[in-house]
Amino acid sequence: MNIIANDPNRKSWIKVEKNCDFPIQNIPFGVFITNEDIVTIGTRIGKTVIDLGALQQLGYFKGIKLSDDVFLQDTLNDFIAHGRKRWREVRNRIAEIFDINNIELQNNVNHKSEVLFDLSEVEMLLPVDIGDFTDFYSNLNHAKNAGKIFFGSENHLPENWKHFPVCYHGRSSSVIVSGMHVKRPKGQIKDKNGNIEYKTTKQLDFELEMGFITTDGCHLGEAISINETEELIFGMVLLNDWSARDIQKFESVPLGPYLAKNFATAISPWIVTLDALEPFRTIDPEQNPEPLPYLQKSGKNAFDIQLSATIKTDNNIETEITKTNFKFQYWTMNQQLVHHTSNGCNLRSGDLFGSGTISGEKPESYASMLELAWNETKPITLNNGTQRTYIQDNDTVIIKGFCQNENSRIGFGLVENKVLS
Amino acid sequence: MNIIANDPNRKSWIKVEKNCDFPIQNIPFGVFITNEDIVTIGTRIGKTVIDLGALQQLGYFKGIKLSDDVFLQDTLNDFIAHGRKRWREVRNRIAEIFDINNIELQNNVNHKSEVLFDLSEVEMLLPVDIGDFTDFYSNLNHAKNAGKIFFGSENHLPENWKHFPVCYHGRSSSVIVSGMHVKRPKGQIKDKNGNIEYKTTKQLDFELEMGFITTDGCHLGEAISINETEELIFGMVLLNDWSARDIQKFESVPLGPYLAKNFATAISPWIVTLDALEPFRTIDPEQNPEPLPYLQKSGKNAFDIQLSATIKTDNNIETEITKTNFKFQYWTMNQQLVHHTSNGCNLRSGDLFGSGTISGEKPESYASMLELAWNETKPITLNNGTQRTYIQDNDTVIIKGFCQNENSRIGFGLVENKVLS
Repeated sequence: MNIIANDPNRKSWIKVEKNCDFPIQNIPFGVFITNEDIVTIGTRIGKTVIDLGALQQLGYFKGIKLSDDVFLQDTLNDFIAHGRKRWREVRNRIAEIFDINNIELQNNVNHKSEVLFDLSEVEMLLPVDIGDFTDFYSNLNHAKNAGKIFFGSENHLPENWKHFPVCYHGRSSSVIVSGMHVKRPKGQIKDKNGNIEYKTTKQLDFELEMGFITTDGCHLGEAISINETEELIFGMVLLNDWSARDIQKFESVPLGPYLAKNFATAISPWIVTLDALEPFRTIDPEQNPEPLPYLQKSGKNAFDIQLSATIKTDNNIETEITKTNFKFQYWTMNQQLVHHTSNGCNLRSGDLFGSGTISGEKPESYASMLELAWNETKPITLNNGTQRTYIQDNDTVIIKGFCQNENSRIGFGLVENKVLS
Repeated sequence: MNIIANDPNRKSWIKVEKNCDFPIQNIPFGVFITNEDIVTIGTRIGKTVIDLGALQQLGYFKGIKLSDDVFLQDTLNDFIAHGRKRWREVRNRIAEIFDINNIELQNNVNHKSEVLFDLSEVEMLLPVDIGDFTDFYSNLNHAKNAGKIFFGSENHLPENWKHFPVCYHGRSSSVIVSGMHVKRPKGQIKDKNGNIEYKTTKQLDFELEMGFITTDGCHLGEAISINETEELIFGMVLLNDWSARDIQKFESVPLGPYLAKNFATAISPWIVTLDALEPFRTIDPEQNPEPLPYLQKSGKNAFDIQLSATIKTDNNIETEITKTNFKFQYWTMNQQLVHHTSNGCNLRSGDLFGSGTISGEKPESYASMLELAWNETKPITLNNGTQRTYIQDNDTVIIKGFCQNENSRIGFGLVENKVLS
């Protein structure tokens, strides 16, 4: 089926400002709550939020095989479980409904009052009930930087790092949506003199990541082939993998991070479908040595997504501290997903997979404070004149991401969290 | 409120054979499906399964504040969310209903036909929808054995091991109930010559563990005190943390095990409440150095639970390969749960926490093949004359556990899985 929703020439009868992340070509999916405390599933064009539950009840999805209450829910899990064909049909239909040449809803004042909300009237919620959260370590620049910082070696990489996308299980209960505050965590920290205390972290860090959300379709004991992976990826979000470096240092050997990470992981509220990102595919990263056959895929499997992180201080002065790109990843999403199922582990609708910190080659494109301030040796000066080696109380960290070509711009909005003491 | 359900002198009008794990003093909770494909929540006395949904509808729980459909569900999560006071009231009421001196249900043929099932008529299902699964590494004998095997050192312990209960996040989607088959997984394995191949594991192992299941009551950003922990623990199950050692060896540095563990984790179907285990408390393990204050708790916080593992070969010949005890744990459940919330990480009803491999001091009480056959150097001879260094295809691993004192026996039944190629 063609992805007619991606037609770059389509205009909408809903106003969309220049450089908006959400033109009619995007059509992301999210969950929102209205002033009347009604929770429902929606999409967004410009600054208008569209109630898909109301649209379905008014008959606008006639002819598409959907369960009656698929959009009248507080998570997207059931819709995601409908599979890629339905996702595509719904996005195509939404594009038609809001096409500037389509008067059906455009001229129906009553229907519009039921379906359309101004962004300021709604609050976005966590879009999925996350079954399991896996976080990868798939960026070579980040892995090399960690090696230099912790082991002083130019080329310190774990022995397995170039053979498969290394990852670990994270915590799903503490995945939060953009806007929620992050409370500075406590943990056992060992100081330079070897004293161990249970105290508040002094090295609170962000990690600029992206995440993808899967549907089911891989049962326990089955391994999928790399060419099947994209059928199982619903879409992507921005992700901030909040980390406490001093807790992490004493905790992580031998079983990896736990308390250093599971106090909060934040995602952006709008899931941008893989279909919407189709125009922004780019060539795969060079991989040397060549991975084993089950991890090999031809074609363009990377995506050109421009990313940035900003610190907003209490007086609302913003400082952009890094610019990077999702195409800098060494391992692709296809490879990550094949790796996950290669032992027969299953997938559920709503599972979340994090990319790992997406650092570029240049220092100004590093994607964590650990790397940007190089383990507290190179403080960053903010536009309010203060300096940072890690994130301070009352700082707000904002991660943004978008794709742009000559035809269109497809964005993710942002994920932001303010840190409280 | 007294736990009158624990009265050791109480007899039931339901027949209970000698040394049965499920006398009227146990009253565990589980989920089962009947011949007519009805899924409901139940308890068990002897070989009789009791439909708690039917009991409630017939009015037997009158006076206890429960939601109307709390037992008419396919998981125990909602009941667990009701909290400890309700768990205790329900167990006490069940003890009264099935007391040999109570004729109300005993003499009601119609009600009995709705409520009682023979064990052979039902199939047990996974008792909870597990939000997150955490697996600990809390047994000193096992940690020392791993150190000797992998590092050749008598006292190789991770630096943090005696300061807090080390753990990692596991996979909840692949937690299975007793009876399900385990498919031998594939993964990247490095041989002695350094060749790396994607192939089937040759070192499939079990880990004899127990797990505890929590209720909610600890929100994100809150840390609970160690004296509050038992209010949040619903009960315990037997757990087999299936592992692939050759995959684990190449995978686990630096972020811990992933594919080596997440192909299957098995639990027993009946959750035995902490209340039922009350008579079997025993003194805490000696801890040196003394843990930090937030990890300290007075009183008896360990439990005397006798555990064993058996291999059943294709011709149904069984060989008990180890006998151990839950009281051999170094870190208690209270300490594990406080550790989890010490950074503000939240808890949900149905979360699962694994103990880690429960090895005793003596070689015959080691709780994994890695330790029992000492890294393939000491093959175990089974009663059918064959030898094992790891688990073979068509082997069934059976883990059993029970508590016993002069008054009563409270058991967990078993968790068993057959391995398929």
